[in-house]
Amino acid sequence: MKNLIIASTSTIHGSGYLEYLLEELSVLFKNVNTIIFIPYARPGGISYNDYTQKAGETFAKINKTVKGIHEFDNPQEAIKNAQAIFVGGGNTFVLTNQLYKNNLIETLQTVVKNGTPYLGTSAGSNICGLTIKTTNDMPIVYPSSFNALAFVPFNINPHYLDPDFNSTHMGETRETRIKEFHYYNTPPVIGLREGSWLQVKDSSIILKGTLTARVFEYNKAPYEIKTGTELNHLK
Amino acid sequence: MKNLIIASTSTIHGSGYLEYLLEELSVLFKNVNTIIFIPYARPGGISYNDYTQKAGETFAKINKTVKGIHEFDNPQEAIKNAQAIFVGGGNTFVLTNQLYKNNLIETLQTVVKNGTPYLGTSAGSNICGLTIKTTNDMPIVYPSSFNALAFVPFNINPHYLDPDFNSTHMGETRETRIKEFHYYNTPPVIGLREGSWLQVKDSSIILKGTLTARVFEYNKAPYEIKTGTELNHLK
Repeated sequence: MKNLIIASTSTIHGSGYLEYLLEELSVLFKNVNTIIFIPYARPGGISYNDYTQKAGETFAKINKTVKGIHEFDNPQEAIKNAQAIFVGGGNTFVLTNQLYKNNLIETLQTVVKNGTPYLGTSAGSNICGLTIKTTNDMPIVYPSSFNALAFVPFNINPHYLDPDFNSTHMGETRETRIKEFHYYNTPPVIGLREGSWLQVKDSSIILKGTLTARVFEYNKAPYEIKTGTELNHLK
Repeated sequence: MKNLIIASTSTIHGSGYLEYLLEELSVLFKNVNTIIFIPYARPGGISYNDYTQKAGETFAKINKTVKGIHEFDNPQEAIKNAQAIFVGGGNTFVLTNQLYKNNLIETLQTVVKNGTPYLGTSAGSNICGLTIKTTNDMPIVYPSSFNALAFVPFNINPHYLDPDFNSTHMGETRETRIKEFHYYNTPPVIGLREGSWLQVKDSSIILKGTLTARVFEYNKAPYEIKTGTELNHLK
């Protein structure tokens, strides 16, 4: 019954917030009037209210109402009763920390398994993997665990960035970082470039968007997959 | 009695390992024959032996011997008896995790406070701050704490990178990330560009190298400091 869009980014360069995804979102949220928004990741430290308003303005274009989870006295009940859920981007550590603090991990797992449509972008997509160990974010708070929602049986690296061979900067490339991940962990990692998303329906996981994605499997050379590729086999 | 070099990077573009720092290191390690190397951060997953050999080859140029901490049965005793310590770069989470596992945090704090010369580069510099919450690294393992060695009363961001205004990538700039840190934490952060280092002698902390560094204080606009600036007042 799963029904998710796991997007690399909310915004592609030169386009408005969620604009490139709106058609897809009309389909994902077809039978939905109100979406519960989880603004915990707070990009740039934006307030929950301002962030929720930003999401609301965008979803108004496809005639959906957005309510922030912080507007409810009981966030667990808000999730249990949600018609649909959107988890926005920002800092993955801050987001994960707040999900654990509010005891929302299992609740989210249950409702999404039972069919509540879910949209994640950036940090909200990172948490759809097994762990947040392949986030690009700065660890500005210490969550009680790096374990995430495990909606897919692998890890996500959103905003995947190819190595810049002209760079003189000595910091690690994204590919190097993910390879280091595999010295300590075995799950596959999907490097999702900006503009790509995973569409999850029941046990089907398909790469969408125009770009290829980069797959990192333990003890294997990384490889590219085309849009439309089924990822069900990855584990 | 503190005596440290806290360097942004081990290697600057177009130059060999530690090459740009060797003269400084001759001074830092003036009275030292053997340096204990902590290779735990394992850049690119390199083995402890290979990483130690690499450090050894470089220090041979200034007539120092390098021994890896993993060559000792008791790492705490190795640190207690060390003439000098070098903590190399790699992954800050992996490094911190291993320091906690081997109960080395307090031992390192004690010996460095008592005057054992310390060189840190990259991840080895990150851990000189209050916490590792301003590392750039991927959180590929979950350490038991983000608290670090606190050799200086602020946080370090090594490999500091200025925003690229031509970029079309939607990931956060370094400056945005550090500003987000200050939504949840109050200590100052020093963005150390590659080629810069902090020289710590007792209570004196001085920016060295040719470049400026970027200072982020809580509730203040970020600002640049020139090489030679004393940072003792920062807290």
